[in-house]
Amino acid sequence: MSRSPGRKQDNHKISRELFVLTYGALVAQLCKDYEKDEDVNAYLDRMGYSIGIRLIDDFLARSAVKKCRSYSETADMIAQVAFKMYLGVTPSVSCSSAMGNEFSLILDKNPLVDFVEELPAERASLCYCNLLCGVIRGALEMVQLAAEVTFLQDRLKGDAVTEIGITFLRKPEDRKHKRNK
Amino acid sequence: MSRSPGRKQDNHKISRELFVLTYGALVAQLCKDYEKDEDVNAYLDRMGYSIGIRLIDDFLARSAVKKCRSYSETADMIAQVAFKMYLGVTPSVSCSSAMGNEFSLILDKNPLVDFVEELPAERASLCYCNLLCGVIRGALEMVQLAAEVTFLQDRLKGDAVTEIGITFLRKPEDRKHKRNK
Repeated sequence: MSRSPGRKQDNHKISRELFVLTYGALVAQLCKDYEKDEDVNAYLDRMGYSIGIRLIDDFLARSAVKKCRSYSETADMIAQVAFKMYLGVTPSVSCSSAMGNEFSLILDKNPLVDFVEELPAERASLCYCNLLCGVIRGALEMVQLAAEVTFLQDRLKGDAVTEIGITFLRKPEDRKHKRNK
Repeated sequence: MSRSPGRKQDNHKISRELFVLTYGALVAQLCKDYEKDEDVNAYLDRMGYSIGIRLIDDFLARSAVKKCRSYSETADMIAQVAFKMYLGVTPSVSCSSAMGNEFSLILDKNPLVDFVEELPAERASLCYCNLLCGVIRGALEMVQLAAEVTFLQDRLKGDAVTEIGITFLRKPEDRKHKRNK
């Protein structure tokens, strides 16, 4: 009575909906565990960080990207390769500082909030997708790039777009290196 | 300084790794919250159930499947269409009762445990993927099929395969209907 269907090559892809609903369940659990939004945000960020430091190996192996030569190239890589690969969307990128180390990833549509209409009134400071910031921060750290990653705008909070800010923290040797050029 | 990449049609697909790691973070959080494995298992099942009752609409809309005419057809649908769609794998199906209402979904490879080597000794009774049982149970309930869904074997616990058992709970009118045929 056993039926064994033909198997195709496993292509690493899954449907987004199950992920989105599972992520929602995770956030709901944290909201149950922690009263303050700030604590939930911090927890999501830390959790994302642990994911990022593991995900980077998978990313480097599957994307076969070469070393980025600038912060700008790194920001493009995150948006056009990593977001596309892991979330199926491609944010646009803008550089928001003359120093060239601050970037914004702008999402017209955030795939993680498909089933979320709005945040409950008592959760107005929740950064629902803060896990993503942690993932980016963790992954960057593993390629020796320290960065601050935070949500600057969020459609869930009534903003027109969702914007993730990435500030690369320049290392002293970067500046020295530049001066010596 | 803004670069807007060309956008392709959003195809609902994402990479599995981010989901798998996020699911791991969820289970870890529950293990932190609940001391007993049984409580974590029950929580994962309930959480899965709430996901299943929402996911079924997405499934029916995207799969465009017709009404199943038998439990056997339903089990095949879960394995060959739903698992494929949401997890990118296709379990084999076997019917394990003469009554025709008990089925096993057998996974040679469980995509949800990609990054998990084994359960810690103190978590020997944890059904790591119990969310899946809840999802199946919730989704079936929404199409008027009551079922018990549990893990019968689990590679994480040293079994040769991972096996999910589905027992359709016959309704009195089913039996009556059969007799009248």
